[in-house]
Amino acid sequence: MPLVAETAVDVPAAADVLAAAERLRPYVDTTPVLTSPALDEAVGATVFAKAECLQRTGSFKLRGALNAMLQLPDDVRARGVINVSAGNAALGSAAAAQLLGAPLTVVMPETAVPEKLAAVRAMGARVVCDGVTNAAEAFARAHELIASEGLHLLHPFDDADVIAGAGTATLELLQAHPDLDAVVIPASGGGVLAGGILATEAAGRTGTTVVAGVQPEGNDGFVRSLAAGEVQRVPQVRTIADGLTAPAPGVRNFAIVASAKAPVVAVSDGAILDAMALVARTLRVVVEPSGAAGIAGLPALGLAGRRVGVILTGSNVSWSLFAETLQK
Amino acid sequence: MPLVAETAVDVPAAADVLAAAERLRPYVDTTPVLTSPALDEAVGATVFAKAECLQRTGSFKLRGALNAMLQLPDDVRARGVINVSAGNAALGSAAAAQLLGAPLTVVMPETAVPEKLAAVRAMGARVVCDGVTNAAEAFARAHELIASEGLHLLHPFDDADVIAGAGTATLELLQAHPDLDAVVIPASGGGVLAGGILATEAAGRTGTTVVAGVQPEGNDGFVRSLAAGEVQRVPQVRTIADGLTAPAPGVRNFAIVASAKAPVVAVSDGAILDAMALVARTLRVVVEPSGAAGIAGLPALGLAGRRVGVILTGSNVSWSLFAETLQK
Repeated sequence: MPLVAETAVDVPAAADVLAAAERLRPYVDTTPVLTSPALDEAVGATVFAKAECLQRTGSFKLRGALNAMLQLPDDVRARGVINVSAGNAALGSAAAAQLLGAPLTVVMPETAVPEKLAAVRAMGARVVCDGVTNAAEAFARAHELIASEGLHLLHPFDDADVIAGAGTATLELLQAHPDLDAVVIPASGGGVLAGGILATEAAGRTGTTVVAGVQPEGNDGFVRSLAAGEVQRVPQVRTIADGLTAPAPGVRNFAIVASAKAPVVAVSDGAILDAMALVARTLRVVVEPSGAAGIAGLPALGLAGRRVGVILTGSNVSWSLFAETLQK
Repeated sequence: MPLVAETAVDVPAAADVLAAAERLRPYVDTTPVLTSPALDEAVGATVFAKAECLQRTGSFKLRGALNAMLQLPDDVRARGVINVSAGNAALGSAAAAQLLGAPLTVVMPETAVPEKLAAVRAMGARVVCDGVTNAAEAFARAHELIASEGLHLLHPFDDADVIAGAGTATLELLQAHPDLDAVVIPASGGGVLAGGILATEAAGRTGTTVVAGVQPEGNDGFVRSLAAGEVQRVPQVRTIADGLTAPAPGVRNFAIVASAKAPVVAVSDGAILDAMALVARTLRVVVEPSGAAGIAGLPALGLAGRRVGVILTGSNVSWSLFAETLQK
């Protein structure tokens, strides 16, 4: 396991994705793979879209949170889990905690979408948000609570079990369509991208199915980090894709993506919004901007004429933004 | 078969739905069944939504058209098929004809949505629409072409094979969730409603799963016909649900629905639009107004607390209407 030696952290392997898929089977939906001749014509490739936008809680995040929580010792889980997230990871971990009867605290920024705060609370989680305005403050507050209450930190993306769980979406896609030339996956922290690389190995497709990442131009941490050869932090994150705002790749995720030499491209917010509307019009599903990033990345990845899997990661969208974008 | 004796037309039976399901397997998608705790809370029932809005061509109509065309003698199919439709049946039959390499003519009103005219043409069908402004003119033009060109008429809903094919959507739903208390289905001509009743019998659920229909108040032909005991025509059809505009139940469909004593309710256009937005917000799929009618009918059907299947029939929506409705 050279990756472990290089990074001195617990990096997951392909077998962990297979184990996660077994573990998650009773809890997560096998989401459909959608196709559309009109979409194929618009993008110039044959697209197999894995609709994690239809997953319970509206994103793939449930997979990673559940895979991690299911493996916690009973006493640790009973003491309580804590998560830091403004959005999909909060919803996913709240649903996971509710399913397993585990007490959950989520540290969210005060500025989080009110509907998301309410949805997380409705699933029984304690929400801490007073005085939290950014990611640094959120992690600081989480560490205070860990120290005072003995909570277990569930990292939203830089955790071996979360990565393996996220990878099960790509595994299901490749099990349904084993002959894809590529799988394209949105990335900021990089959990679902790194997990997708492991899943491709687990499916026996390393070297035949390329895994590629797509980022917003305003938060291109993987592009910068791969160029630099080490994890780089984006000084100021600016993107409409509120599901892609982690300012740096996770250490484990970067190690996996760099080792696989996976291409990662950055696209404009305009391209992401166009892709969101294109997905709604052709595949007839709601995606949030981050969920459409994979489609937005197709032109830059040079996949014309290929059979391409794309992970539609989530659908927890601002409805006014969604409606405005459709009207253009 | 008392229905045949009563109506003197070929009324399909439960076995025809099972045969249709076998016949269609290579061609149609087994659409997913979607659920949402937020939807359940909003409607006060546990909903299992059969997402025919994600079916190829954006509606269940492909099922009936294919089931009918697959059973035509080769020489009849090769001579050509003709269909009358402003929307989903045109798209479904065009895709069916394309799959089977059959020449297809569709008579559509001049006022049909331009995107739908273009989509039907793009699938290789001949579109006849000059001087056609309503259903009566469309059927008259179709009969001229049948006489002059020897084409085979594929009725969009009042045809035994079309009904059996449409019923396969409900059959798939009941095979995935056999213990539903009810299945709620939109109706104007009534093919998918009548087919759903046969499917429920085929699944061994007659008497345990109630099948109910929902219509717009502005086109309540089944409500009127059931009250009168015979097929009644709605004098002036007025509804936002352009997928539910057949002005009278099909003879076969009425016979099946009346014989089953299936309840049918009418709902306002406002309730249909509210349901369209609710489906998008909770199930994260696009539905057109007719596709949301089943959800709109739940309150009037007295299904509080029950396990209810709902057929989301289609997604070929006007995007400006969809976006405007989401913004309310």
